[in-house]
This record gives sequence, C-alpha cells and structure tokens, in this order.
Amino acid sequence: MAGSKTGRGNFFEDFRLGQELVHATPRTVGAGDAALYLALTGTRFALNSSVEFARGCGLPSAPLDDLLVFHIVFGKTVPDVSQNAIANLGYADCRFLAPVYAGDTLAARSRVIGLRENANRQSGIVYVRSTGTNARGEPVLDYVRWVMVRKRSETAPAAAATVPTLARAVPAASLALPAGLTFERYDYALAGSPNSWEDYAPGERIDHADGVTIEEAEHMMATRLYQNTARVHFNQHAQAENRFGRRLVYGGHVMSLARALSFNGLGNACKIAAINGGRHVGPSFAGDTIYAWSEVLERFEIPGRRDVGALRLRTLACKDCPAADFPDKDAQEKFDPAVVLELDYTVLLPRRG
Amino acid sequence: MAGSKTGRGNFFEDFRLGQELVHATPRTVGAGDAALYLALTGTRFALNSSVEFARGCGLPSAPLDDLLVFHIVFGKTVPDVSQNAIANLGYADCRFLAPVYAGDTLAARSRVIGLRENANRQSGIVYVRSTGTNARGEPVLDYVRWVMVRKRSETAPAAAATVPTLARAVPAASLALPAGLTFERYDYALAGSPNSWEDYAPGERIDHADGVTIEEAEHMMATRLYQNTARVHFNQHAQAENRFGRRLVYGGHVMSLARALSFNGLGNACKIAAINGGRHVGPSFAGDTIYAWSEVLERFEIPGRRDVGALRLRTLACKDCPAADFPDKDAQEKFDPAVVLELDYTVLLPRRG
Amino acid sequence: MAGSKTGRGNFFEDFRLGQELVHATPRTVGAGDAALYLALTGTRFALNSSVEFARGCGLPSAPLDDLLVFHIVFGKTVPDVSQNAIANLGYADCRFLAPVYAGDTLAARSRVIGLRENANRQSGIVYVRSTGTNARGEPVLDYVRWVMVRKRSETAPAAAATVPTLARAVPAASLALPAGLTFERYDYALAGSPNSWEDYAPGERIDHADGVTIEEAEHMMATRLYQNTARVHFNQHAQAENRFGRRLVYGGHVMSLARALSFNGLGNACKIAAINGGRHVGPSFAGDTIYAWSEVLERFEIPGRRDVGALRLRTLACKDCPAADFPDKDAQEKFDPAVVLELDYTVLLPRRG
Repeated sequence: MAGSKTGRGNFFEDFRLGQELVHATPRTVGAGDAALYLALTGTRFALNSSVEFARGCGLPSAPLDDLLVFHIVFGKTVPDVSQNAIANLGYADCRFLAPVYAGDTLAARSRVIGLRENANRQSGIVYVRSTGTNARGEPVLDYVRWVMVRKRSETAPAAAATVPTLARAVPAASLALPAGLTFERYDYALAGSPNSWEDYAPGERIDHADGVTIEEAEHMMATRLYQNTARVHFNQHAQAENRFGRRLVYGGHVMSLARALSFNGLGNACKIAAINGGRHVGPSFAGDTIYAWSEVLERFEIPGRRDVGALRLRTLACKDCPAADFPDKDAQEKFDPAVVLELDYTVLLPRRG
Repeated sequence: MAGSKTGRGNFFEDFRLGQELVHATPRTVGAGDAALYLALTGTRFALNSSVEFARGCGLPSAPLDDLLVFHIVFGKTVPDVSQNAIANLGYADCRFLAPVYAGDTLAARSRVIGLRENANRQSGIVYVRSTGTNARGEPVLDYVRWVMVRKRSETAPAAAATVPTLARAVPAASLALPAGLTFERYDYALAGSPNSWEDYAPGERIDHADGVTIEEAEHMMATRLYQNTARVHFNQHAQAENRFGRRLVYGGHVMSLARALSFNGLGNACKIAAINGGRHVGPSFAGDTIYAWSEVLERFEIPGRRDVGALRLRTLACKDCPAADFPDKDAQEKFDPAVVLELDYTVLLPRRG
Repeated sequence: MAGSKTGRGNFFEDFRLGQELVHATPRTVGAGDAALYLALTGTRFALNSSVEFARGCGLPSAPLDDLLVFHIVFGKTVPDVSQNAIANLGYADCRFLAPVYAGDTLAARSRVIGLRENANRQSGIVYVRSTGTNARGEPVLDYVRWVMVRKRSETAPAAAATVPTLARAVPAASLALPAGLTFERYDYALAGSPNSWEDYAPGERIDHADGVTIEEAEHMMATRLYQNTARVHFNQHAQAENRFGRRLVYGGHVMSLARALSFNGLGNACKIAAINGGRHVGPSFAGDTIYAWSEVLERFEIPGRRDVGALRLRTLACKDCPAADFPDKDAQEKFDPAVVLELDYTVLLPRRG
C-alpha cells in the first residue's frame, strides 16, 4: 500500500448519482501536440494539416485533430473514473461541439449519470457524462462513457440502480458544425480525394488498404501525450504477471490509427461530428499490424446546408489481417477474431452542391 | 482489391509528358516539427536551433532544417509518383530556394519531365521535377527525381521515350542564398566549431566519429512526420512476406542521421544549398547503427560574397561499421557492403573574409 | 582516428582552473519541446501543463518543466566537459533562477572550479559550475557538477589539486522564486491533489505507486531532444563491445521519469527550486521498469511568504521493483540493488496560509 497521499482512484461505492467530478491537469495544446499526433498516427486530413486549407474552409486556423481532443479529454477522466476499472464497456452520444485550436487550454469534468451494482457485489457499472471545455469555459466535446469499476469492499452498500437511456446515434439536428465552417470553396485536389458526400452510398464498404505496425514506444508516447495514466499501458514489469503478459495498447490509439488509415477512401471526411458508439472488441499489443475498413451506415443532409453533408460510418480495425475481405461479425454476432475495434461515428464531407 | 475510392496511385501508363500533378495535404510546419526532427535525428546546427543565432545571421527567425523541408515535400509526392514504384532511382538538381519558417504552409506539385518504358514492358522510368512552395506560392525547394514504376498492364501503349539531361551538380551561379543571410558576425563559439570555409580543402576526408542505432518507432515516426505513405516502412505484417522480411527504413531518415552526424567536423556547414545527387546504395533496417564520413569534392566562392563560401560534399553513411577507414567504392566502382548512402550536396559556410 | 576537425572533447590536462567554457548550440525552446517532454515522461504538473493555471499562479505563461531545462543546459556541457568522462560523479548546488518560457533561447557556459588528478595519473576529477542563460543573458539555472575525465597522456603534468567546498543543500535564503509567483489562488482541484505544504512532515515516505517501462526509442529521443551527445546512449554497435553490452539510458531520463511518477503523492510540488545533490546509483537500460518513492527530508518556510512553502525531498528510483517497501540503503550505506537513482531536491508547494 502506498501512503494516503498517493491517489488510488475511486471505487464503485465512492460514486454518487449526480456527482460532479472536476478532473485534474488542464492542458494547453498546440503545435507540439499536433506534430506528435501526426508522427504517431500518420493522419493526413488537410483540414487539420494546413492553416491555409482550414481558412479556405472558413475556420480561423487549423483545428486540432478531433480524436486528439477526444483522447486528451478522455485521459483526464481516467484517474477519477477508471483507475479501478475492470473494463471499459462503451461510450456513446459523443458530440464535438467546438473546434480546438493551438493555444486553447482543455479541461474536463464528469457527472455521474448512472450506477448499477453487479450481482456478485464485487463491482458495478458507472455511467458518466464527461465534458471537455476550453479556457472560455465553452464545451468542446461531450460524451457518455460506462465502465465496470471494482468495489473496495463487497459489503459496501450500493445505491439503487439507475441506468441512463442512450440514443443509438447522435441525430443530425444535434450535430454541431464549427462556427464559420464552409465547404463552398473546398479544394479537392489539395485534400487528396475527388469524392464528395454524394459519392457515398449506404451499404458501401471501403477497404483502407494500408497496414501499420504498432511499437511499444509509439503507443506509450501517444498515451502519455494524452496524460492518460491507465497502468496497463506502461508497466511491463507488472503486466508480465497479468493475463496477457504484456502491455495493452490504449484502445484510443487503435481508433486513431484506423481513422488515419481511413484517409484511403475517405480523404474528405475531414471532420468528425459525433461518435455514436465504440467497442474495443479485442486487445492490441505492440507488434500488431492494424488494418481498417469502413461501411457507410447512413448518408444524411445537414439541415439548411448545401455545402456540407454527413455520413454515419462504421469503421472496423483488424490486426494482422488485411481488410480487403471486410472481416466482420458472423450471423451469430460473433466478431472475426482479427477484429479489435468497431467504431460508429458521424463525419462531415463537402457536397458538390 | 479495395473499393475504387481507395487511391491506388499512378502506374507507368498513367503518366504523360508535361503532366502537372498537384499533390495532396498542404502542411503548416512549426515548433512541433522542429522539436520532433531534432529528437529523431540529433541535429545540432545552431542556425536551425536558435532564433537568436539565426538573427545574428541576418534571418528573421530560425529556419527549419533543410532536410526536414525536403522530406515533407518529398513525402507529398509519394502517393502520386511512387506509390507503385519498384525502385527510387535517384534525384538531382535539388535547390533550396527559400528558407522555411514556423508558420509556413508547405505544398508540393510535380511536372513529368521524362518517361521511358523498360524493355520488358512491365515497368518504366518516370522523371518528375517536384517543387515545394510556401503559402505565398514561392518555391522553397525544387528537384528532379526518377523512379521505376510498375505498369498496370503489360500491353498498355507507352509514349516515345524522353529522358531529361541533368547536370552533375548545381552550379554556383544557380544557388539561392536566403534573403538577408550574412555570416559577417558569425559566432563560431556558439556554433561549436572553429572551422571556416577556408579551412576545408578538396580531397579532404572527415570521419564524423559517432554512430546512432535506428529503432522501428523512430524511423516510422520520422516518416509519418513527413506524411510519407510508402508502405514498406510501416507494415511488418506485409513486409514479413517480402524479400527482406522486415520494414525498410525510409532512405531520407538515413540522410538526416548522416547529416546530423556530420556536425562532428562540419559544424559550420549550417545551410544546405543544393543536393546534386543521392543514391541509396543499400537498405537500412531497425537495429542498424549508422556511421558517416564526408569527402570535400569542391570548394568554391559565392559570386559577390566575402562572408560565405560553398563546399560540395560527398557524404557516405555506413551501417554497423565505423567510418574511420572511410569505407567507399573500390576500383570497380563497387561499394563496400557497409555503405548504405552516398549523398552529393552543396553547403554554405562562413568565411573568415 | 577521425580528422582533426572532428571534435574529440577535452581531456583532463586540457582544463585549467578558472577556465571559462562557452558551450555550443544555443536553443530556442517551445511548444514542441514541451509536448515531446510530456509524451516521453508522462509529467502531469498543472503549472507546466496549462497556460491558464500558470496565470492563476501569477506567471505570464506556463513555464517549461524544470528538468527539461536542466537537461537542455546539461546537454550543452557534454561535448566540452564530459565527452571523455569515465564517470559522472555528482552534481550539487543547482538552483533554478528564472522560469523558462516558450520562445526563450537557452545557452550554457561553464567555469572550471576544481581539478584533482587521480593517483594513477590516468585521469582526474574536473569540477565545473555550469550556468544556463536565456536570450537576455539572465541566468535560468546554475549548478556544480564533477566528472572523472581521462587524461590524453599519463605523463602530462597536472595543476595542483583544488577541490571546491559544496554545501549539502541549497539554503532557503538562496532559493529563487519565479517573478510574480503566487499560490494564493491555487486551484487544488485542477492540480489534482488536495495536499498542501502543511500536510507533509519530515520523515514521511511516499510510494509513487506506478511503474513505467523504458524503450530504446524513448530514451534516445529524450536524450537527443536535449542535444546530449554522450555516445553510450545511442550506439548499440559500439556498446555491444562494452561492459554492459547495451546502450545506457541517460541518467537524466530516469530523473524525469521519477519526477513524473512523483505526481502520485506530490501533485502540488509543482516547482523545483533546487537540486541539492544527485547520484546515479546504478545503470538503467531499455526494458527496465522504473518505480519511485520519496522521503520528506525537511519542511521549511520561504522567508516572507505565507502562500508558498518548501520541502526538501529525497526521491529514489528503483528498477523492476515496486517501491511500496521503500527500497533504500542498508545500515552499511549500501543501496538495495534495485535502486538506480537518489535525488535530493527542493520543491515549492502551496500553503493553506
């Protein structure tokens, strides 16, 4: 046991419905984070890469990659929410509410919106709505996450179960477009893809073709960049004793790799508007090679806009298995063993108008 | 086969003489790129390291490392030019035309200046002149590169062969000095080397003494920082089936390591003015230790300048072999097996006047 | 032997008492360095992480991490002071004199303050006081370091022995607080720890709980970020022939990892004011997992201040051994074999007033 000053995180019985958690370590982001994120993931979306391209899209500068923002906000919640987690069960209703620019300071807070003790009384499920804010206090990101958290004591009493109702997907009317964003003068050549919103059809499947092998140094640097302290990612000495015998790759790093790979075929899907749900189907480790493919679930208009449209995508990441044959669930809803991630999210693309 | 939206790059028969290619993903560079480049290569030239030192040399700020700029521009050409390359055959006539500063946005375009089908009709050689530009449209870098590219179909007709004539080296009169550059108040102590232009003589050979071992995470981060998508660098799963069974290190990373090592002995060669030619003599892999040595090929004046002079250098990088004995070509022009890179380039140094 | 232009560093007989060394490669630091340092160490102190938090503490912006500054200044001294070192014996009397902000340019110089030839006449001990300065010439850091340096020639005459007297710890009156620093409105929630200066007591021991495994790519990137050229960290080809058969991790990287781990239990110890002494008890290598614990040696007031107090800490880093049992020296002053670092330093914390 460490001394009492060493934070040990919250256990299931420490959470109360309606509780507000202020997470530590506000962080000013900037050019260094963007460069590192690029070097660690290989992302190539022009909107995040070029100040001039972003200005051509009506923004004051190049916003930070949406998933970089997600990971930084998520990382802040770890010490308070999931330090004693047995499993990250899911997230939903994640909306990107305002772009984040170099110089912005991100902070995070969470509200406990659901609690349900498990039958074995050794753990329970905690639902939180987490919000990332900038220095002006404006929300930049808002999402629900649920985790299975250990109890400190099996006999500790638990509150009555409360489980929030969550939509399957963020509705079009709830999507927040960045202030000023316009795709009226979108430069398809500089963006590197000729395909506009109209070119995609529900049911279409896209192999993202490339594969990228993960190194220990890379996933640890990425995860530290997000100040995510979950121990399973960093400590080989302790992990050697655990189930897998190895450090686990932060699932968010796989999300970022799959998103970067998706540039092959989705090069103009330059803005994530929402994450409808995500599931880390299997663990990833250093040495794994990640491939990805996507299915277009829906194509829908943004109310009042002719320059921009939305696609709801389902992107699957696979390890050590090319995605040309679209490895997926079988008829029994059992995933192909190569699949490690299923991500359901909504992206914005330019329309030809 | 991936869906049609996943770019598969150009095959030999897709190129036309005179064709202009606009490359994707403009990129705003800055402090993050400079720090990462430094951390990945160990470069120590004061001109790139210190804003104050650069100002003392008449520049408005510290320019980004010349090779960092080269790699970023080069990386943009890969999806259009060399996605289906069998081999990178060479580059020539590379001139650094304007310094690049933090905040500049780099873009790249190429013109096809030569095409020659191979006798076997399965591939051909494509010559392009690629130009990197800043946000004001000014060229910052211009070079010729030729690659052997697969044909999609052996029976596809090929244009008549056209092969450009290339100078062996960029002539002094064609070198572009950065606007404002002066070495009149050059601080040799802060730069870390007492040697001026006058101290070098043609034929002189310099062992750069140190060696640096390459890690997979490092060369992949460097190559992604340049948004270079060539698959052989990233995908161990696919490379395991290939000739070497391993990921190949981007040849440009070896160039950068050799250039950083050359600080030992060439500490005032702080500006690359031109790359006259380059040849990746052998492949490098993670685990290789790179050493380097240089030969002074020529020493020449810059017309109208007493404060700055030029050296034409030939730098060789070797792997797992110290360079103290200057491993080189033998009488039959066959390279010592340790040599992986031969780079012919022109640098600017201060003159004592 | 390399040519004469390749710097080979100073040998013992090259140093003279009172000699002033101007170290090479001034370096402008910024957002890229901060992000890389964070990604390589996982540091979470809010003062360095958030511009707004720093402003709330009276500073104009978020200062760079103190150890990042230390390592950059230290790195500059290596080519002149310890290129031919047999051992880094210690450092003392290190004071952080002014915060370093993005855009500052760091330079370093050293004065030889002691020399003592060893009895075998093959080496000697060199004592230097090194000073880091910013672009305005203000000292930001000042410390004494002593190293055992080879002689070029056993018969070279040596100066009479002079050994400086060094205090065991920097006295409170000598500590320099950053201009404007105030902890009157310190935000404990955002900082992530409820403990103020009053909550710590001399003799208290704190287990920092987490462990972090070092990768080759990480320690080399960190060490290059500091432009530290010591060869033992980078060259596996040469190290394979040496005592350990492996690259050594820069001891400063272990200091930074221990400091980052110390956030668990010392989350408000956000400013290092002094390093009283440090000892690299054993070598670290890639693959080692670093744990850390701290002992509070002293708690003292800062003259004239009610908002800020100081703790003198002794932090020990251990490898492949959790710190829950506080591995330490035994009665014979022999360290537990797991211990790799003992660092004696003084930190500033908020007082409840």
